[in-house]
Amino acid sequence: MQSTYYIGIDIGGTKILAAAATADGRIIARSKRKTYPPDAPDIDDPQALARRIAQTALDAMKKANLTKRDIKAVGIGAPGPTDVRTGYVFNAVNLPGWQNGFALGAALTELLKLPVFVDNDVNVGLLGEATYGAARSLDDVVGLFVGTGLGGALVLNGRLRRGFRWGSGEVGHTYLYWPGKKPKDIERIASRGAISKKLAKAVRKGKSPILAEILAQRRDQRITSGVIRKALAAGDPVTQKAVAQAQETLAVLIASITNLLDPQAFVMGGGLVESLGEPFLAPIRQRARELFFVRQRVDEVQILPAALGDDSGVLGGVALAAEQSN
Amino acid sequence: MQSTYYIGIDIGGTKILAAAATADGRIIARSKRKTYPPDAPDIDDPQALARRIAQTALDAMKKANLTKRDIKAVGIGAPGPTDVRTGYVFNAVNLPGWQNGFALGAALTELLKLPVFVDNDVNVGLLGEATYGAARSLDDVVGLFVGTGLGGALVLNGRLRRGFRWGSGEVGHTYLYWPGKKPKDIERIASRGAISKKLAKAVRKGKSPILAEILAQRRDQRITSGVIRKALAAGDPVTQKAVAQAQETLAVLIASITNLLDPQAFVMGGGLVESLGEPFLAPIRQRARELFFVRQRVDEVQILPAALGDDSGVLGGVALAAEQSN
Repeated sequence: MQSTYYIGIDIGGTKILAAAATADGRIIARSKRKTYPPDAPDIDDPQALARRIAQTALDAMKKANLTKRDIKAVGIGAPGPTDVRTGYVFNAVNLPGWQNGFALGAALTELLKLPVFVDNDVNVGLLGEATYGAARSLDDVVGLFVGTGLGGALVLNGRLRRGFRWGSGEVGHTYLYWPGKKPKDIERIASRGAISKKLAKAVRKGKSPILAEILAQRRDQRITSGVIRKALAAGDPVTQKAVAQAQETLAVLIASITNLLDPQAFVMGGGLVESLGEPFLAPIRQRARELFFVRQRVDEVQILPAALGDDSGVLGGVALAAEQSN
Repeated sequence: MQSTYYIGIDIGGTKILAAAATADGRIIARSKRKTYPPDAPDIDDPQALARRIAQTALDAMKKANLTKRDIKAVGIGAPGPTDVRTGYVFNAVNLPGWQNGFALGAALTELLKLPVFVDNDVNVGLLGEATYGAARSLDDVVGLFVGTGLGGALVLNGRLRRGFRWGSGEVGHTYLYWPGKKPKDIERIASRGAISKKLAKAVRKGKSPILAEILAQRRDQRITSGVIRKALAAGDPVTQKAVAQAQETLAVLIASITNLLDPQAFVMGGGLVESLGEPFLAPIRQRARELFFVRQRVDEVQILPAALGDDSGVLGGVALAAEQSN
């Protein structure tokens, strides 16, 4: 009988997610484990992490009552630029053992004895949205993911664009620039991380009593997307200003990308977009369209919220496995 | 016998160029005529311009001792966004009769009784460079043409990217932006036109005696690329500063596009690049590479001068005709 299932894996800095699913994106079972168990003695051992990933994949397979014969391929999103042909991850800055590169594809193929395909996690997330999510009927999509940083990925003419050096989609590192100024990564303004940093400083300086009160109700002092949402709802002017600046910057970025590539759609996701929702996106959409150079069919360029949430990584892995093994 | 020749046409604001050539880009004969003859009574008549274009094409054919039976197709670059399927030019801001759109493909097909293909002139110029010029062995090229404005075009995976609304490559309208500032078209700094404007102002204010002296030797007062070259050679600090600012801006643009698309090469052309040559390109190349986010294989991303000069338009037309008719 033909193998008609895939395993998708999402490797984050705190947890590993895996799912067994069909080619049309129906998830049969999920599994989950910590990327680094508490006080892990093996945090610098790249193979130890590979073994945990393999185990998570096998857990999902077993929970779905499947055997290796049922699995056609495994697809993984890794947090760093990746050579898709070989599954080599050049540098995963958040994963201690892999910071100087790791042959993840080879290691997992050996551990799982299954075909394994690896790509950058943002590419994989957008592939999930383009195959099963917000952009499933579209051929041409730019993904923008607003979280700790600003991640990006491109599907052009129905194919992920990976780049000459496996480095495309690093949209957080496109530049803010003004003559006479030093160019600055756009994610230093347009990300949840940048907003949090600015707000933490305002709290320290006593400039945002509203935010200080919200934070006082939390054990940690982390300015999460949820905290930002609460501060906006409470009318905090410091938060409003930082968010508005991120929105304007994202609108200019979308317009610049549109003038360069003229894509059919943008899909916006990440923690901040998921938390703030349509009130965050609507002004970006309107402002970006004002800035499009080609004035024909301005309203047809879609600016959509991501639809898969936390499943975008594992479903993207399934899409990657299906794409590369067919 | 098979038709194995093509006609390429380049429509500029001052002249129409045509060439009859083989599919491998060997030009057999050329022809030329003014876009608008002096005191043309028909400057607002869109059909009159179409007739002059058709006549220029027939002139090239006759000079090459060819008949219509020898011509497989005609390819044209039009100065405006164009629907390649229909040959409709949406707006050609420099051509009075075509500013609100013109069905150029249909008009020329009717006049020439030959298959006619139309695309935006910057797309066509890059197609020429990608087929016969600086990028002929490359699959993945961004074209940047520094002249009155800043034109751009993209060949990705061996195909011109035309965009969802036929509007890709409008790189002169990507934005300079800095939080708190109003976004500004990048060509307002990084173009020959912007430099000339800045220098004309300096001359009027008496701030550049060197440039004033160079201009005194010209009948017109136009600050052409040649004038800029002379002022640099004479060590004019005002010109040096304006050119350096354009170079820095172009380097940041190239780095941003690289971080977004990770292409194999950039081809730089246009009047200013042709006039200033390698001393203009070398600092851009070096600075851009400093700003690439992915640090692997930085030197492999090529930043090349265009190779076809004034022939890029007609040869691009030939390449377009060959591409679309095969």
